[in-house]
Amino acid sequence: MAIRVGIIGYGNLAKGVESEIRKNNDMELKGIFTRRDPATVTTKTDGVKVYSTNDLPSMTNDFDVMIICGGSATDLPRQTKEYASLYNVIDSFDTHAKIPEHYAAVNEAALKANKVALISCGWDPGMFSLNRLYANCILSEGKDYTFWGKGVSQGHSDAIRRIPGVKNGKQYTIPVDAALEAVRSGEAPELTTRQKHTRECYVVAEEGADKALIEKTIKEMPNYFADYDTTVHFISEEEFTANHSGMNHGGFVFRSGVTGFNNEHKHIIEYSLKLDSNPEFTASVLIAYARAVYRLSTKGDYGCKTVFDIAPALLSPLSGDELRAKLL
Amino acid sequence: MAIRVGIIGYGNLAKGVESEIRKNNDMELKGIFTRRDPATVTTKTDGVKVYSTNDLPSMTNDFDVMIICGGSATDLPRQTKEYASLYNVIDSFDTHAKIPEHYAAVNEAALKANKVALISCGWDPGMFSLNRLYANCILSEGKDYTFWGKGVSQGHSDAIRRIPGVKNGKQYTIPVDAALEAVRSGEAPELTTRQKHTRECYVVAEEGADKALIEKTIKEMPNYFADYDTTVHFISEEEFTANHSGMNHGGFVFRSGVTGFNNEHKHIIEYSLKLDSNPEFTASVLIAYARAVYRLSTKGDYGCKTVFDIAPALLSPLSGDELRAKLL
Repeated sequence: MAIRVGIIGYGNLAKGVESEIRKNNDMELKGIFTRRDPATVTTKTDGVKVYSTNDLPSMTNDFDVMIICGGSATDLPRQTKEYASLYNVIDSFDTHAKIPEHYAAVNEAALKANKVALISCGWDPGMFSLNRLYANCILSEGKDYTFWGKGVSQGHSDAIRRIPGVKNGKQYTIPVDAALEAVRSGEAPELTTRQKHTRECYVVAEEGADKALIEKTIKEMPNYFADYDTTVHFISEEEFTANHSGMNHGGFVFRSGVTGFNNEHKHIIEYSLKLDSNPEFTASVLIAYARAVYRLSTKGDYGCKTVFDIAPALLSPLSGDELRAKLL
Repeated sequence: MAIRVGIIGYGNLAKGVESEIRKNNDMELKGIFTRRDPATVTTKTDGVKVYSTNDLPSMTNDFDVMIICGGSATDLPRQTKEYASLYNVIDSFDTHAKIPEHYAAVNEAALKANKVALISCGWDPGMFSLNRLYANCILSEGKDYTFWGKGVSQGHSDAIRRIPGVKNGKQYTIPVDAALEAVRSGEAPELTTRQKHTRECYVVAEEGADKALIEKTIKEMPNYFADYDTTVHFISEEEFTANHSGMNHGGFVFRSGVTGFNNEHKHIIEYSLKLDSNPEFTASVLIAYARAVYRLSTKGDYGCKTVFDIAPALLSPLSGDELRAKLL
């Protein structure tokens, strides 16, 4: 019997889960839960049922795992712990500094209810975290580097759009090539914030807005832009729609380390992603880990987990024999 | 108390374990086992005891895990299953086609003796396998690519040295840049053997040897060189010693996949290694996994494992709390 999966929320990430779950024969999308009136929600695929989140408490026998697709700022800190008392759940909570707190709350709820909850899944946190961990365990003497981009930063785009006179805006984070090359060379450079990334902004201004002031406001915005070399391009609404509607992203994780009796040998481990669709890729990671969540629940291995706790074989629909023969 | 580690064998890989284990405070190198007369073996570090492999059956209380550093051709198929009946063990068995057979034999021995055995650990099989697995689970529709090099192939170097008239020889496997770029572009090319790698040989000929014949013999050697564009350089013994004594290696694992309702979005996952010392890096991977082997044994999770079965957190000396706070 296929693993019965539900989606909570119906934004970009949820739509990614909806499109990608169809590529996994051992899983079935049984329903989408929304805070809106279900009658107002039209799904991308036919035949998927839409329910109200109010129905969640009464449907616990109908789903094996829920993929919670809310935002990290306000949704997930509340939702994941609440729903972990009803279902096996997985989320993509990505506020790095608050992970320990989120973990503790979700772990308590999941253990109490004999459920499995996996938090902070996706690519960062997620695949990037895994690569940091593996590389640190292998090369105990070394330095870590994480670069993001080229890609759209939602938080920075939002910050631009809050500036008076801005009609629409998008921000791309771009890793600096010279910094990537310096890391790849094995010279283990010390890099400042400014040396690692540049920020490129595409802004649609309202008619009559003071563009010089908008540009200055962006470039001097503390935390978001002040520490970076930032470029601002003013473009038309048409150009914005045509060229800046995508959700591409990506990045690089490096560890530069040494081995040898005198640390005379250098090693570089590099992991990188180049993604046309951030939400669809993140959804693909969540789906693979939802399989692992379900399997842990069948073994009674309850509580809150992260990608660090999941044996890789649990992610695959293939058997151990098949994996050893084909992929090892 | 530190994890008490033994090394079986004392070649390049074993010396890598000897140098790198010192960087792990929770582990202690308690002894090296050799088939030679222990009195003839001088270790690189002071104070490490050398024993005969004949002593292995009588020292089972003195070691928590044995790192078996024999060769895959003849040593490991015999050694790992034999020693898995005495100790928790780990090996780097790398004959991909024979992994299922090796797994079955080692699993039977380990289960019978209540020991943990981890086979085929290192970077390929090992870290490359893990990256193939993760990437396949995430992007279920896509293509895999593995490239090796630039680096020294031991098997190909041996094949050159067996040719009459060859005094010394070394072979470098080199991935073709155009092929790497084609994969990175997301065009998911079909690549022939010849398009993926070139082979570069450095040969010291004996005095009076027929160099033209040696070159022809190398280039036409079936399986090893005939399917590749191969370059042969004749050099002096001095140049060989000065420039070709290293054991550098590396490679690339890619998955090129698609997502979206119409598979309209491309994604590239790339993992690469650039290693000054193949044996020291492989040893570093084995050491991290030896920690996991020991931990599984304390939980009674016996039998034969591969990197696919090991939750990443088990590799790290850090606690779950520390990992979530620092690396997630």
